[in-house]
Amino acid sequence: MLGSTHGTLTTDSRRARVIACGEQPGPAVHGRPADVDGMDVSGRPLYADVPDLERFFRPESVAVVGASDAEGRPNTGITRQLLAWSKRVGARLHPVHPTRPAVFGIPCVPTVAELPEQVDLAVLLVSDPLPVIEQLAETKVKFAVAFASGFAETGEEGAAAQARLTAAVERAGLRLLGPNTNLNAFEEFRDDLDGPAIALITQSGHQGRPVFSLQELGVRLSHWAPTGNEADLETADFISYFAERPETGAIACYVEGLKDGRAFLLAADRAARRKVPVVAVKVGRTETGARTAASHTGKLTGADDVVDAAMRQYGVIRVDALDELQDTATLLARAKPPVADGVAVYAISGGTGAHVADLATTAGLRLPSLSAAKQAELHQWIPEFLSVANPVDNGGHPVGDHRGRKIVDAILADPSVGVLICPITGPFPPLSDRLVEDLVAAAEETDKLVCVVWGSPVGTEQAYRDVLLGSRRVATFRTVPNCLTAVKAYLDHHRFTRDYRSPFDQAPRTPSPSFRKARELMRPGQQLSEHAAKQLLRAYGIRVPREQLVTSAAGAVRAAGLVGYPVVMKASGADIAHKTELGLVRIGLTSASQVRDAYRELTDIARYEDVSLDGVLVCQMVERGVEMVVGISHDALFGPTVTVGLGGVLVEVLHDTAVRVPPFGETQARDMLEDLRGRALLGGVRGRPPADLDALVEVILRVQRMSLELVDDLAELDINPLFVLPRGQGAVALDALAVCR
Amino acid sequence: MLGSTHGTLTTDSRRARVIACGEQPGPAVHGRPADVDGMDVSGRPLYADVPDLERFFRPESVAVVGASDAEGRPNTGITRQLLAWSKRVGARLHPVHPTRPAVFGIPCVPTVAELPEQVDLAVLLVSDPLPVIEQLAETKVKFAVAFASGFAETGEEGAAAQARLTAAVERAGLRLLGPNTNLNAFEEFRDDLDGPAIALITQSGHQGRPVFSLQELGVRLSHWAPTGNEADLETADFISYFAERPETGAIACYVEGLKDGRAFLLAADRAARRKVPVVAVKVGRTETGARTAASHTGKLTGADDVVDAAMRQYGVIRVDALDELQDTATLLARAKPPVADGVAVYAISGGTGAHVADLATTAGLRLPSLSAAKQAELHQWIPEFLSVANPVDNGGHPVGDHRGRKIVDAILADPSVGVLICPITGPFPPLSDRLVEDLVAAAEETDKLVCVVWGSPVGTEQAYRDVLLGSRRVATFRTVPNCLTAVKAYLDHHRFTRDYRSPFDQAPRTPSPSFRKARELMRPGQQLSEHAAKQLLRAYGIRVPREQLVTSAAGAVRAAGLVGYPVVMKASGADIAHKTELGLVRIGLTSASQVRDAYRELTDIARYEDVSLDGVLVCQMVERGVEMVVGISHDALFGPTVTVGLGGVLVEVLHDTAVRVPPFGETQARDMLEDLRGRALLGGVRGRPPADLDALVEVILRVQRMSLELVDDLAELDINPLFVLPRGQGAVALDALAVCR
Repeated sequence: MLGSTHGTLTTDSRRARVIACGEQPGPAVHGRPADVDGMDVSGRPLYADVPDLERFFRPESVAVVGASDAEGRPNTGITRQLLAWSKRVGARLHPVHPTRPAVFGIPCVPTVAELPEQVDLAVLLVSDPLPVIEQLAETKVKFAVAFASGFAETGEEGAAAQARLTAAVERAGLRLLGPNTNLNAFEEFRDDLDGPAIALITQSGHQGRPVFSLQELGVRLSHWAPTGNEADLETADFISYFAERPETGAIACYVEGLKDGRAFLLAADRAARRKVPVVAVKVGRTETGARTAASHTGKLTGADDVVDAAMRQYGVIRVDALDELQDTATLLARAKPPVADGVAVYAISGGTGAHVADLATTAGLRLPSLSAAKQAELHQWIPEFLSVANPVDNGGHPVGDHRGRKIVDAILADPSVGVLICPITGPFPPLSDRLVEDLVAAAEETDKLVCVVWGSPVGTEQAYRDVLLGSRRVATFRTVPNCLTAVKAYLDHHRFTRDYRSPFDQAPRTPSPSFRKARELMRPGQQLSEHAAKQLLRAYGIRVPREQLVTSAAGAVRAAGLVGYPVVMKASGADIAHKTELGLVRIGLTSASQVRDAYRELTDIARYEDVSLDGVLVCQMVERGVEMVVGISHDALFGPTVTVGLGGVLVEVLHDTAVRVPPFGETQARDMLEDLRGRALLGGVRGRPPADLDALVEVILRVQRMSLELVDDLAELDINPLFVLPRGQGAVALDALAVCR
Repeated sequence: MLGSTHGTLTTDSRRARVIACGEQPGPAVHGRPADVDGMDVSGRPLYADVPDLERFFRPESVAVVGASDAEGRPNTGITRQLLAWSKRVGARLHPVHPTRPAVFGIPCVPTVAELPEQVDLAVLLVSDPLPVIEQLAETKVKFAVAFASGFAETGEEGAAAQARLTAAVERAGLRLLGPNTNLNAFEEFRDDLDGPAIALITQSGHQGRPVFSLQELGVRLSHWAPTGNEADLETADFISYFAERPETGAIACYVEGLKDGRAFLLAADRAARRKVPVVAVKVGRTETGARTAASHTGKLTGADDVVDAAMRQYGVIRVDALDELQDTATLLARAKPPVADGVAVYAISGGTGAHVADLATTAGLRLPSLSAAKQAELHQWIPEFLSVANPVDNGGHPVGDHRGRKIVDAILADPSVGVLICPITGPFPPLSDRLVEDLVAAAEETDKLVCVVWGSPVGTEQAYRDVLLGSRRVATFRTVPNCLTAVKAYLDHHRFTRDYRSPFDQAPRTPSPSFRKARELMRPGQQLSEHAAKQLLRAYGIRVPREQLVTSAAGAVRAAGLVGYPVVMKASGADIAHKTELGLVRIGLTSASQVRDAYRELTDIARYEDVSLDGVLVCQMVERGVEMVVGISHDALFGPTVTVGLGGVLVEVLHDTAVRVPPFGETQARDMLEDLRGRALLGGVRGRPPADLDALVEVILRVQRMSLELVDDLAELDINPLFVLPRGQGAVALDALAVCR
């Protein structure tokens, strides 16, 4: 069904996706809108089916191929576990074994061809699943799971075996989980917990264990998809499926490498449209991580800054460690949408309040000062000399009596407060137990979020285990940083999904009129001359200086008259880099004689340096603006990307750039500028006027359009510098480098 | 004894310290070196006494002033707790109460004057401790603790009361803890734990609770000093005292505001010399934190970047949250010095290994690739297709049998490995329990550090509670980030203390010959002209362009001949800012007639702009170098500070600067440059040669010397720009701004 693999790695699988979306739907898919034509102008899908995985997670009948009850065989333990699970979920289990008449007393069939009924799911415990997959083609089985390892995670040979497996799966018309996976999907989930649940997707079984264990703390888990090598079913399929399930409160993912960038984005888009939070650990922050992750499951980890940007574009919440994944997913799954984004910190010690307020502000949370009236109200119960502006310090004693609950209610009633955070540094029963009871009771009666940080490193206290963990309404954390990370993600998620508009709805589907003009300029396999690259920009409506390409001194003088003095002259040729360093640029030429001299000098230098020219450019002098860089690169996972950076020394020394994966809208283009550390330059420094941001955003969007329309033609584009002039005056591309495919 | 307070805040108390160090030693101090003359050239102490607090923490006799046994009185609970504690530590307790004959059956005296013996410690439970302190003057009591609140933490009036208290304490010749403190120093410490201990200092009692609770996890705690308002004894006193105690493995601090910057640095210096790690949470990362911390204990929080730099200069490990404080202090207290700085990650899942390796690399740890021989050794027990280069992935099964221990031992035997980190994502007893046992056993037989991350969010598992926490040799963590933070701090601490040389030993004590010349240039309360400011730099051996101040066109032409063409001309006057913007600079003048014209133009503009000139500077043109800024500021807590930054747009837009608190040596001056994000500019970009770092460091050190010698004269200095020329060619200050006090 899904993308074919190239060697061990599935790259930006544009064409594979075309098949996925068009001709060959999976065995069962949700309905798709009729008006979807399928592809954007770059040939990438604008829509992905949601695989119907109901019968995968809740099959009515299961075949276990390689079932065993012989003591000491690993398959015996697995078979036993599957039997118990089948009993629990009410599925009929059919062991398959070539020689045994029965396994654990259940009659065996020798091959899948002889199964007594059409089964929903075949669990393959055999070391080579390929022949079984081929046999399954006849049986109309919907799903298979392959446990065997030794595929793409082991190197080239394994990757080839995996590619054969993928092809067999496509031919068989079923969906496969694995290979190199395990029993996690069929664990014993607690069914006594209700409310919104976490749905878990992990490429590695071990890495999902801590999230699964959350059930022991009362957190509901609905599913666990251990995707393994993703020869067929991938993380994106499960995100899509879980996003449509009513019980899903949040989707928690552990991702080592993404199989298909676009598939992931479409799944994340679906979750964003449905306001379902996706929280993900994605390995690959460093080269070490990327290298070892690739060796682990044979997936492409992607350039991390591109992955990071892509996730943010679709509101995927990226966290670093598994404890953050647990805490953030739990909060997002359970908490109602915020009614205000202000955070109040309430503590029984001024020190604790000050410390947590400090960390909260550092984490990007907003702590509004409570109104004078609210402070007066709080001072009914809290001594006058304690500060209650926010953080609210009650000095300790009031929590021990009737005042405790009144204070909590009063803070929660404040309209500026959407979240109350109460850090309790440790058990001091006379105060902390009563405080915990009041917080739990107050949380039952408010729509606002009540968070408690139980700071004791021990965690066996009754107030924590029974009272706090017993509450569905209080969000309980063990550390302040994890509480703040989760609350920030919670507020960000709801802000993001409230304003979310899918970029796929607005993505261009047909080439613009610029496309034909641009195509004519392409020189396959070559770098364009500066002049040609600028014509390309002009074709897409990006302003360049008036300029003429000339091949004689007399031509240069004529051209200077046309573009207007003063002029700049530059040697032009397909392969010239470092023009300035070579002395191949002359600026501020104000007369015909200077132009004639410059022409002679430039051509002399080019001859001396053995640089081949197609002529000399005579260009209009443009007044200085803020120097920017805008470009197109190609990411192996996501395809074309658009980068913007602050030019000159900032981009060179600090790599101060922002990247986005198309398609994206104007809001994201403006967000890119917010990402730049040196963005203050655009606002005007040293008395300079503010730069024309609208024009800069327009250039970014036009470059995005080029990146999509010319995806097959343009390998790389670099506008450097783009001068962004004062507000209302536009932006001009002074130089450009374009490399054709 | 220590610094007097000014209002609510004790600022950089230079003169107070002079008293502290010189004339009036505390009641009992460790011996001090005879060759210490006491003060650096700025009048700040170079040495601080260590108060002998033995009898504070272990008194033989205690008076409890305000003791009570009346039901329902808060003092009754405190008295009861003190009684129990006295019994435990073998101290005689004497209740003091004006009317009661006995408290809990122990005879009372009505006033401290009537105590039956000289007591070591007086615990003051009365609401106004001042009169008692005055009475105590007669009794030769060594220490007092004041519980009362309502002092500097409540505002101006309370601060005045606190200043009176401080004065009374000085007169009484005793040392006071508090006011606004509590019983934490007299808690019940577990005495069944041995090995190096954590000594704890917290300004707020509540904030120390989680560290105190570590005893329940088997971590030894030796002392807890809840310093409260620090009217007398402050954090620095306890750091010094604990640094000298043999049982101290690490000092953990929670600091809201520092009372005296220099006292803190001297204490941190003592700890660094003795290689005792100091781990600190310091509130005040944000304005919110600083504001609320100040209202809490009435201390100065200090500009956070200066606090941060000061801590790093003395190796104080700053962490953000209390859970990091717990984990980092525990590791540093217990672990032996590292034998190598390489970290190996070992996991039973490739995913876990990849993830933790990624985070470890991000955290700045070094994961050396294991040698081919070592990998071959590991592949004896680990399947060939699994990667064992580091991270080491064993695939799971080998930990279940004899191979498990062999693998751990083999990794630990690698000479490149100093630290083994084994993340266990959760309890899976067949594997995790055996793994834990092997790790605990292996840790007993190695000098290397073995860290385990027990990833289960539950934490009640036997393998965790009994086996891991039962081991003194394995460092156990609950989250990967906290493990990595602690390991980084551990390696950094040992690297820092190994190479540590106290800057106080090399700090200048007498003025340099430059000082007299410089003093003559000072104009109290005024800003110096550019010419005067440059003379000041020249006095300290900092190169400035050849230049002459002239007051006529003819003089300008003569001067140009002397400094040499081409020249720069600038209007010069005491209060000129923004010379360039006003058009008061002319560059690249190559002839007498240009100089004459420039003189006329500059004076015309000055007249038109109504700027008063003391003349026109005719300066040598200097070739461009890397543009830097070097300056002196004044910090309220630490006194003069030296800042260096990358000039031009980098310092203006990105505030890319580094700061240090004098005294510091050449190593720290070089470290400043490492702190700059744009430091690559100094290495040479766009084909430019590397800059003369030695010359830049020399300028920083000379500026430091100015900051110390001219502390009473110079409020501010700003060299901007300093051109750092190519290596071997020096650095030239092109412009300078100096403001006198």
